[in-house]
Amino acid sequence: MDFTEEQSADVVVASFENTTDPRLKEVMSSAVRHLHAFVREVRPTNAEWMEAIEFLTAVGQACTETRQEFILFSDTMGVSMLVETINGAAGSLPEYDEALAPTEPTVLGPFHMTASPERQLGDLLNATGDGTPLVVEGQVTDILGNPLPGARVDTWHADGAGWYDVQPEGGLPLGTGRGIFTADAEGRYWYRTVLPRYYPIPVDGPAGALVVREGREPYRPAHLHFIVEAEGFQPLTTHVFVSDCEYIERDVVFAVKSSLIRDFTQVDDAAEAERYGVTAPFRRVRFDVVLVPCGD
Amino acid sequence: MDFTEEQSADVVVASFENTTDPRLKEVMSSAVRHLHAFVREVRPTNAEWMEAIEFLTAVGQACTETRQEFILFSDTMGVSMLVETINGAAGSLPEYDEALAPTEPTVLGPFHMTASPERQLGDLLNATGDGTPLVVEGQVTDILGNPLPGARVDTWHADGAGWYDVQPEGGLPLGTGRGIFTADAEGRYWYRTVLPRYYPIPVDGPAGALVVREGREPYRPAHLHFIVEAEGFQPLTTHVFVSDCEYIERDVVFAVKSSLIRDFTQVDDAAEAERYGVTAPFRRVRFDVVLVPCGD
Repeated sequence: MDFTEEQSADVVVASFENTTDPRLKEVMSSAVRHLHAFVREVRPTNAEWMEAIEFLTAVGQACTETRQEFILFSDTMGVSMLVETINGAAGSLPEYDEALAPTEPTVLGPFHMTASPERQLGDLLNATGDGTPLVVEGQVTDILGNPLPGARVDTWHADGAGWYDVQPEGGLPLGTGRGIFTADAEGRYWYRTVLPRYYPIPVDGPAGALVVREGREPYRPAHLHFIVEAEGFQPLTTHVFVSDCEYIERDVVFAVKSSLIRDFTQVDDAAEAERYGVTAPFRRVRFDVVLVPCGD
Repeated sequence: MDFTEEQSADVVVASFENTTDPRLKEVMSSAVRHLHAFVREVRPTNAEWMEAIEFLTAVGQACTETRQEFILFSDTMGVSMLVETINGAAGSLPEYDEALAPTEPTVLGPFHMTASPERQLGDLLNATGDGTPLVVEGQVTDILGNPLPGARVDTWHADGAGWYDVQPEGGLPLGTGRGIFTADAEGRYWYRTVLPRYYPIPVDGPAGALVVREGREPYRPAHLHFIVEAEGFQPLTTHVFVSDCEYIERDVVFAVKSSLIRDFTQVDDAAEAERYGVTAPFRRVRFDVVLVPCGD
């Protein structure tokens, strides 16, 4: 079979005839067919193809211990969110009349690069004192509302200026805005921190620079990240979004789902603040998490 | 517009509405549509998608001053050859009754990472003495056979054991097997070297390791690389392939074109060897190059 423009994908797929891993064969065959279709459609010059090679190389080389530029590129291309959407489809759930809606997943994002410190319920995640105090509380349950005692709640978020601890520009001690909590006997968790601000994805690397070239606003609306796990349940990676953030309708990584938006209510009452160990005025949000049982 | 599995590509493409560079907009829109179609087809788990992210990251991080792993990945996926095929289509050539066929292009490959040394016609490119002596000669002309004096012939190739100078495993001094020649008044060039051997692409990096996982033979048939340039003509990137190499029918990067295969004739005559300044037996190949004029 000649390697012609029309047959190129067939020729390459034929080279996989001895691939013993059937899933690898399926994935690589599909990758070749779609990649060749893309190339035939855009007809890159040699110089354009080299530019693409150099872009992808730069994305790989921008990755460090604390930065995953390829995840960021996957995020800004909407691919991470598509993968989450495909995997989050809970089509095989048992049906109950009174069932709660499982909490929807969303993207992991590029900043889960350092282990969150283990924390005690009520701990303060951000002790720098800048920003609006925030109290986060919630309960982890199954789809029938049964609490999941001992659920593991890993959370991380930007600070009041939009920085994560792993971004050197923010100057935050590692672990700021992060914590792993163990839910109590009723599946409840709570912690104190500061209200996160919207922030730009890093535009000093190739993925962010491409977003700027595309004329897009590089912002993510304010949110808290969560990974929630409990034995016998599917791990959930998600966010809770701050409803009154100006970028809530145009997230650069397409991660907003309406079911994940919450009002972060302002509380001015000093006695209420004292009860939580914060100062008024502060914000408070309740984010309950409903997990889906593992399949057979 | 909701970000659903069906609409995900539309949502992302809509985010390019303010992209001012029309070519960038076209390329990125096409990339998003094909990438999302691929993801919808293979339905990767989150773990599989992370494996893909880690693979691409490793490809980027394997790139160094002397190694371009993303070109290698593009090569083994047949994409480099497809780009060459699309760009090599000389559809707009003037037609002449007696025209020669323009020399076909093929892939650049990952080893053109160091500047070849300037050489004099007849120079010895590989002085290590191992391998079968080889004499390479040819003429650079236009499609009517008119010689192109002063044409620039950049050539590079593996040695008799299949190593390029930039591969540290081969232990070859940098510049071995490489040279830039200026064709004489008749457009002729010639040089002495050793017969290159077939070789495996590097399998110690992620692109080569994937080829092995795919159950493919990671070999490139024996060949010499060329970039030939002359003022007023389109630069040509190509190979000449050794006809009696066992891998000639199954190049791992799909670069073989029948028009680029030559017999590397064995010569046993001592007088003939002396004429070229080599020892018998040696091999000899003639590779004439026909360049296409630049467009308007």
